[in-house]
Amino acid sequence: MTDLHTNSIIIDALQSSDFNREILLEAQSGGVTAISASSVLWENFEGGMEYITMWREKLAENADIAMLIRTTADIERAKAEGKVGIMLAWQNTSPIEDRLDYFAIFKDLGVNIMQLTYNTQNFFGAGYLEQNDSGLTGFGREAVDAMAQAGILIDLSHVGIKTSLDTIAYSSKPVAITHCLPSALKDVPRNKPDEVFKACAEKGGVIGTSLFAPGLAAGNDATVADVIDAMQHTLDLVGEDHVAIGTDFNHNRARPGPWLLWANKDKGTGRTLTEFGSSKISKPEGIRHNNEFPALTAEMQRRGWSDARIAKILGRNWMRLFGQTWGA
Amino acid sequence: MTDLHTNSIIIDALQSSDFNREILLEAQSGGVTAISASSVLWENFEGGMEYITMWREKLAENADIAMLIRTTADIERAKAEGKVGIMLAWQNTSPIEDRLDYFAIFKDLGVNIMQLTYNTQNFFGAGYLEQNDSGLTGFGREAVDAMAQAGILIDLSHVGIKTSLDTIAYSSKPVAITHCLPSALKDVPRNKPDEVFKACAEKGGVIGTSLFAPGLAAGNDATVADVIDAMQHTLDLVGEDHVAIGTDFNHNRARPGPWLLWANKDKGTGRTLTEFGSSKISKPEGIRHNNEFPALTAEMQRRGWSDARIAKILGRNWMRLFGQTWGA
Repeated sequence: MTDLHTNSIIIDALQSSDFNREILLEAQSGGVTAISASSVLWENFEGGMEYITMWREKLAENADIAMLIRTTADIERAKAEGKVGIMLAWQNTSPIEDRLDYFAIFKDLGVNIMQLTYNTQNFFGAGYLEQNDSGLTGFGREAVDAMAQAGILIDLSHVGIKTSLDTIAYSSKPVAITHCLPSALKDVPRNKPDEVFKACAEKGGVIGTSLFAPGLAAGNDATVADVIDAMQHTLDLVGEDHVAIGTDFNHNRARPGPWLLWANKDKGTGRTLTEFGSSKISKPEGIRHNNEFPALTAEMQRRGWSDARIAKILGRNWMRLFGQTWGA
Repeated sequence: MTDLHTNSIIIDALQSSDFNREILLEAQSGGVTAISASSVLWENFEGGMEYITMWREKLAENADIAMLIRTTADIERAKAEGKVGIMLAWQNTSPIEDRLDYFAIFKDLGVNIMQLTYNTQNFFGAGYLEQNDSGLTGFGREAVDAMAQAGILIDLSHVGIKTSLDTIAYSSKPVAITHCLPSALKDVPRNKPDEVFKACAEKGGVIGTSLFAPGLAAGNDATVADVIDAMQHTLDLVGEDHVAIGTDFNHNRARPGPWLLWANKDKGTGRTLTEFGSSKISKPEGIRHNNEFPALTAEMQRRGWSDARIAKILGRNWMRLFGQTWGA
């Protein structure tokens, strides 16, 4: 592990792992400062509350190595104390149900990042697997305003192209694409075209390069170098202030298994949307676990990127965006 | 009241009145055989259940003059007994939330008609006031199948044009437009173009002419004759087997008042969608109450329409469609 890695704030903007002490210890040993723990996919209000209480319990049990992140100051503190910070985040607004006033409720309970919709249509807009993307709805505009007001960062990773572009254009705040790969290198529906990355960056947002092997040109044969190639593409497109990391790790989930099968059904109970729930999907060789984070830094250094650039990608870009959107 | 009126089954396919004994007595004296009581607009699962229990109580209190309709045989029995039949119906699928299996639950509890969405976008499709109409979504197709399976008639009155056409094309069963007026005579968003009426009829569906004054050419100056003019337009378009009545009466609701203001907000709590909640909107002169139904029959007779045609419009067309969609 290089000094640069050891000294940097390292943020992973998306994991849907079922966290336990072992995973937290791996993250700690990999030098990870903060992880967005984003396992909510189809839950309703009650499920959203269960997610909060689940994390309160887990963080209490692991208080020696992990802590809740509410502000960027908390991330600095996690770094100083050598703890793994946990950001509460959702991959869907489904727990909001039809109540815009619930955004502020969940923000008060610590939820700092929400994806507008997960894979399909909801009240606010369309996911990338919906057959027609009608864009940000009228109620969706109200949601975007309510999230800005509450201090919740909007994530567009699984959101449809039109809804993504509408949201970027409408939002008063910059937004995130926490975990996504470029269509330019592999044209699969889950990846995003350069146009969306550019619009996100022009608004001040940040794009997290993901480790989702089916979205890399090399697929399941990918290595760390392929990830950094994808990052390089995005970097060339939008500049070093707008690129970061969102691993999409989902450790401790049986594959195939009930959680992934549920995840891949519309609303958790409808038709199966993709085969990702049952197929073998690996992460790229050399970066399959939280303790392998130094491999990403090493590959960036091997390419001769400056320390300043690498520090931005590892965490400083997320820090800036979080600071701009979370409120004090 | 003519013999034709007295002897006919008379069905009103939409009222959102807050029913009480006085309204039921007016309906009884107007010769109304069955009313679709469709006041659910934005309610969630619990609200849908409250609607059921509310009606169980009201029907128990008024068992001498009203009865629950589950089948077309029940409508025949209501006619024979001189009671007002109440069809449980919703103007939104919102109480289903994200659970397709709830369609069969609510059908078992008596809900026989549901509008796919009310005014705006939901999981299944777009309402007529949504800025962009996504069409029937993937989950919407699943819903249409689940409703056909359960025996629930789909209503498209407030549904967007693209979602309406998609639903008609996709559905294995004919569908209803319970209360709507033709755009051809007055081009307002709440009315529907001939294309949608024709598609509905070609699939075997039925279009209920509504009494919503803002949708009539004469607006608040309209009379019974204007309603029958609108009916005549639809009749010329689709033929006498596909035209019927859905009054859109909403008696016992203060105007302006909390229920109508709630009704006119997106999801009941979002932005206000129309001014219908606060403006003075009357029904056409001569057909403002349930005891004035004979005026509709009289105007049809005055135009020399055959008894057979009038009987279809008053109730037989709804009977056929209910029989085709509700199951035994």
